[in-house]
Amino acid sequence: MRLTKATDLALRVVMSLAATDPEPSTARRIADEMRVPYNHLAKVVARLQRMGVVETRRGRGGGLSLTDTGRTASVGRLVRDLEGAGDVVECEGDVPCPLRQACRLRSALRRAQEAFFASLDEVTLADLVAPPTGPVLLGLVGRPPSG
Amino acid sequence: MRLTKATDLALRVVMSLAATDPEPSTARRIADEMRVPYNHLAKVVARLQRMGVVETRRGRGGGLSLTDTGRTASVGRLVRDLEGAGDVVECEGDVPCPLRQACRLRSALRRAQEAFFASLDEVTLADLVAPPTGPVLLGLVGRPPSG
Repeated sequence: MRLTKATDLALRVVMSLAATDPEPSTARRIADEMRVPYNHLAKVVARLQRMGVVETRRGRGGGLSLTDTGRTASVGRLVRDLEGAGDVVECEGDVPCPLRQACRLRSALRRAQEAFFASLDEVTLADLVAPPTGPVLLGLVGRPPSG
Repeated sequence: MRLTKATDLALRVVMSLAATDPEPSTARRIADEMRVPYNHLAKVVARLQRMGVVETRRGRGGGLSLTDTGRTASVGRLVRDLEGAGDVVECEGDVPCPLRQACRLRSALRRAQEAFFASLDEVTLADLVAPPTGPVLLGLVGRPPSG
């Protein structure tokens, strides 16, 4: 059972930004922190921008940071948006499942998927960067914990 | 968010067997019903045999059928066993995530995964082959609904 690689990276990006918030970062720096290829990370950042979760400001003091929407979104909301509404098994592939119009498994799996998202609805980005995670994130870029 | 292809096929196999239970079937027949390659399906059947969920009996009146364990297992139990205990994101891949020892996201995702399985713990194979699904399954192999 797997989330997409894009969702995985997107969650790491918003966690990194939340750990240093409101200080901005860059996609390059986060790629280095997370040891992932820059071009993969840049695509994910573009996706998060389209979702209104992060923004880039140019000039002195600029960079990549969370928007107010990003700061207040639940992890459940982010994962729902990133994963989309697809089935967890392939009902409608190149060879559609012959049961797909009358399938009690499909509806049971949809309820289970909703239970997965609902569990994450209870979690905020602030929860994710509470100790011990936040200080570890700050240590990755050599920044002392604030406060 | 996806279950593995093997889990997907395994669930279709046990649903097909449950629809005609206790009349046995064969891997070949189920592969035809589900329009999937026989060699993929045979691997999945071998896995279900090792799990004690299905059994093959030779000779007249023989074939592939559910075991008592298979008949009474919840869908949650089957999916847990088929999917294993891995993370839904890649924490320990070729380039392990630097946060993996102190990650609040990882524990939040594990709770969400458990909520997914727990939702399916409420569902039995008998639930999955209740109408309308069971009759559609029987129609795929040209067998009239029993009872």
